[in-house]
Amino acid sequence: MDFSSQSIANAVEALSKFPGIGKKTALRMALYLLRSDQQVTLNLAKSLVSLVEEVGFCKKCHHISEEEYCSICTNLGRDQKTICVVKDFQDVFSIESTAYYKGVYHVLKGLISPLDGMGPENLSLADLFHRVAQDGVEEIILALPATMEGDTTSHYLVNKLKENSSVKVSTISRGISVGGELDYVDELTLARSIIDRRDY
Amino acid sequence: MDFSSQSIANAVEALSKFPGIGKKTALRMALYLLRSDQQVTLNLAKSLVSLVEEVGFCKKCHHISEEEYCSICTNLGRDQKTICVVKDFQDVFSIESTAYYKGVYHVLKGLISPLDGMGPENLSLADLFHRVAQDGVEEIILALPATMEGDTTSHYLVNKLKENSSVKVSTISRGISVGGELDYVDELTLARSIIDRRDY
Repeated sequence: MDFSSQSIANAVEALSKFPGIGKKTALRMALYLLRSDQQVTLNLAKSLVSLVEEVGFCKKCHHISEEEYCSICTNLGRDQKTICVVKDFQDVFSIESTAYYKGVYHVLKGLISPLDGMGPENLSLADLFHRVAQDGVEEIILALPATMEGDTTSHYLVNKLKENSSVKVSTISRGISVGGELDYVDELTLARSIIDRRDY
Repeated sequence: MDFSSQSIANAVEALSKFPGIGKKTALRMALYLLRSDQQVTLNLAKSLVSLVEEVGFCKKCHHISEEEYCSICTNLGRDQKTICVVKDFQDVFSIESTAYYKGVYHVLKGLISPLDGMGPENLSLADLFHRVAQDGVEEIILALPATMEGDTTSHYLVNKLKENSSVKVSTISRGISVGGELDYVDELTLARSIIDRRDY
């Protein structure tokens, strides 16, 4: 398709890099910017550059941070003795959006996955073990995906943590969704929800 | 919600300006960029700045152009004697995507809409009449929206063009969509499709 302008073609190409955004939506976005005030477009461009320039990672938990330590690790209102272990920083945002969890996090930056060449040494495990050894951590909550890689990583972590410390280790529950009908749930999840049943 | 970083909060705010993109999708987009190579983000930012700096409008048809005249007006393979009149440049992209139309365009940059304070003097009409008078135009195809403002503008144009020239004026047809079922079509469109029926 002729975009009438190399700049539009470039913008469409760059915008369609976003997951779930095809060429057609990208063109609609580019044309929206052309119809908007120039300041809207320049602000967006500036905010993207500052994403690259300002955002780094917390030295303690590896979550996103503009400072040496992130806003969760430095928040004295959070329970520093409970660490929730997640795969990546997106999971921190997911759990934070529940507004329920009051402890801190540790971002593994991946999962053990031999097929992808990811071993324990590629994850931020040394820092996690260091925190457990030094910071008087009382509980580790594993919040990893319910996939083979997630389960492998969980098992590895449980073994290592039990071996080297007396910290309590738990994992988030699997089961049917809140509000979910039984006939929409897959068999494995339904079986798991019976095995993991809770007493009233 | 705590975005852990002012840069992320700013990017989410800027990205959610796009129509149809809420805070949640904007956050997903920002986190995608943080996980990507920095060059992806910087390329996107650069392409947005060049949208603002490079893209202007064709002096002849008012479509988007980086040069004085757009790639359609300067394309000698296009029929310069047939002008399709559209509301805005987005409509040019829509018609171009059909790959069927071989004439040129004229972008009105709006419609007559007294309630919004838009009169004929706010549109690029003088340039259209100038083209009709000077360029030996043979047909004007009105491709305006099937709304009250679109119809008002079409009627105004038909009257003006008939008054001052002998150019042929037509309008795109209204009717049921190709592949459309009759029971999903609104009554007005269905009635129009009967009135505008075509002989076999």
